[in-house]
Amino acid sequence: MGTGTVDLQEFLIRYRDIALAGIAEIIPDKEPKKYLYDLVMEYPNRGGKGFRPSLCIASCKAFGGELEKVKYSATALELFHNAFLVHDDVEDNSDFRRGKGTINRVNSNAIAVNLGDAMNVLSFTPLIKNEKILGRKLAWKIFEEIRDMVNETVEGQALELGWRKDNVCKLDDEDYFKMILKKTCWYTCIYPVRIGALIATNGKIDASQFNRFGYYMGISFQVQDDILNLVGDEKKYGKELKGDIVEGKRTLMLIHLLNHCTKSEFKKVEAYLENSDVPEKNEMAEWVYQLMLRYGSIDHARSIAKNMAGAALQEFYRIFSKVPASDDKQFLEKLIIYMINRDY
Amino acid sequence: MGTGTVDLQEFLIRYRDIALAGIAEIIPDKEPKKYLYDLVMEYPNRGGKGFRPSLCIASCKAFGGELEKVKYSATALELFHNAFLVHDDVEDNSDFRRGKGTINRVNSNAIAVNLGDAMNVLSFTPLIKNEKILGRKLAWKIFEEIRDMVNETVEGQALELGWRKDNVCKLDDEDYFKMILKKTCWYTCIYPVRIGALIATNGKIDASQFNRFGYYMGISFQVQDDILNLVGDEKKYGKELKGDIVEGKRTLMLIHLLNHCTKSEFKKVEAYLENSDVPEKNEMAEWVYQLMLRYGSIDHARSIAKNMAGAALQEFYRIFSKVPASDDKQFLEKLIIYMINRDY
Repeated sequence: MGTGTVDLQEFLIRYRDIALAGIAEIIPDKEPKKYLYDLVMEYPNRGGKGFRPSLCIASCKAFGGELEKVKYSATALELFHNAFLVHDDVEDNSDFRRGKGTINRVNSNAIAVNLGDAMNVLSFTPLIKNEKILGRKLAWKIFEEIRDMVNETVEGQALELGWRKDNVCKLDDEDYFKMILKKTCWYTCIYPVRIGALIATNGKIDASQFNRFGYYMGISFQVQDDILNLVGDEKKYGKELKGDIVEGKRTLMLIHLLNHCTKSEFKKVEAYLENSDVPEKNEMAEWVYQLMLRYGSIDHARSIAKNMAGAALQEFYRIFSKVPASDDKQFLEKLIIYMINRDY
Repeated sequence: MGTGTVDLQEFLIRYRDIALAGIAEIIPDKEPKKYLYDLVMEYPNRGGKGFRPSLCIASCKAFGGELEKVKYSATALELFHNAFLVHDDVEDNSDFRRGKGTINRVNSNAIAVNLGDAMNVLSFTPLIKNEKILGRKLAWKIFEEIRDMVNETVEGQALELGWRKDNVCKLDDEDYFKMILKKTCWYTCIYPVRIGALIATNGKIDASQFNRFGYYMGISFQVQDDILNLVGDEKKYGKELKGDIVEGKRTLMLIHLLNHCTKSEFKKVEAYLENSDVPEKNEMAEWVYQLMLRYGSIDHARSIAKNMAGAALQEFYRIFSKVPASDDKQFLEKLIIYMINRDY
């Protein structure tokens, strides 16, 4: 156990597939299918990487818990994540997700909004099933964790949407970190690990000890994701490259650029962000991208991602030094390094 | 008690205001305000009638329960309802709600989608608070009721959106009833009454006895709502009259018309529904409305609404004959008659 032989990809696929099977199992076999239940597996089947269920299951097992006890919670996490994606694509008016057309584009905004709502409420089914395997007290605790998790996420989303709506251009790295803590870190890193550990210890562990670790990890993960949107391999990445610029997303690179460019460049970028849905939007996005290159904005983001990854690993070693060696502990360590170094 | 002296409007306002105060109380006093927490009360403050919390509270009290025990559940029902409205307005691309601009129009689709998600998750806060006043077992039962309720609602919404998306024009009254059972009856009538009675009896009552009653009542309520969209007082109604026709909603009147008009009229209506967002949409909607008048479609709907209302009252008397007289029982009876006879 824990000898460095763990195959990261094999674990990731195995844990993700547990969550996907869990989702497939709770989809009712009844009408309406065409515009509801048939679409629930659409995004999950496009091959997400399953970071959230993997973190949750591995955390539970590393703390001595059983897979059987955590599987419903891992399922709920993956389903909530996919529900967020469906609504995100409406909110961002996105065309592509994981290499294919978004639900809002292929079907309609209306169907996508309702599908996301359906997926959100379906996510409560595994949490209700938790009662049978965890007892009502711990099941209730997990339900509260999930409620807090979703709440943080919508707050983060509101912050970001507000910046875009008001065309806020005076932001700094700290503003970005605060927003990403809410929008990404809680539901992608912190709560999956917390929930796994709570289940393993029958609710006894102090779950807040993972908050800092998940914060560093989530920031690193998101910054890496934003960088890939600019310089990634479009095929692997599955979305339009530079789409974030066109959508006016306040990324670390954009914030760095706005803080370092000339006054006249600032005004031009600001005006473009004010109304980015123009015929020449792609040329403008390319121009913004070239400015980012010139001012070292992407290098700045890369360096932040690396620092945050280092801090996450440090926190990981601090927390998990007390935990016995196991394949799952080793997998967690590898997963953290992978999440923040991935090229798609 | 129960002498016919109950003031319907006074009760409605009192019970609605309990739910509104409950919502206001759970809104966190923190950022992000402008595009999130400040908007949660926007629709509730526009003066909904509070049918759902009123049904729930009165049902609980009529069965001998205390207001203090049902208030959180009534709050959750009203908040879920308002979350549905926020997303409905995005899905229907509506301009007005309760006499003012919709969130999607005044802010943006993105902010409305996220706000609805936030309101959905906030609705779980009173359900978590239920634990303290109901004990964990009953609180859990109510949580399951709510999960089933929301699930029915998104299924009904998917059915209706699917009909519009595929421009389904061959429907009959039964199809409509099935769709409205899911889209409206469960969350507007059946579950509010079930939840109130479950709380009053500490989970002991057979809640399914209210299903048929709430079905008749909900159909009558929705048909009345659809009729008001055609012939109501726009000021009182708060939405664009004939908006349902422009949006291609499959109402009982439209279904009746499609089953009774000539083949060439059918083709013309069908073609208009296929693409109703045309410059002459208002003239076309007026033409469809005149056809409905000519073929007696509105009279048909009125007669269905009356029949369903009668069936609802019959069910009400059957169920509540065993329940002692009280102001709340009397209020419930008056409320049913009011909900299905209202002119706005």
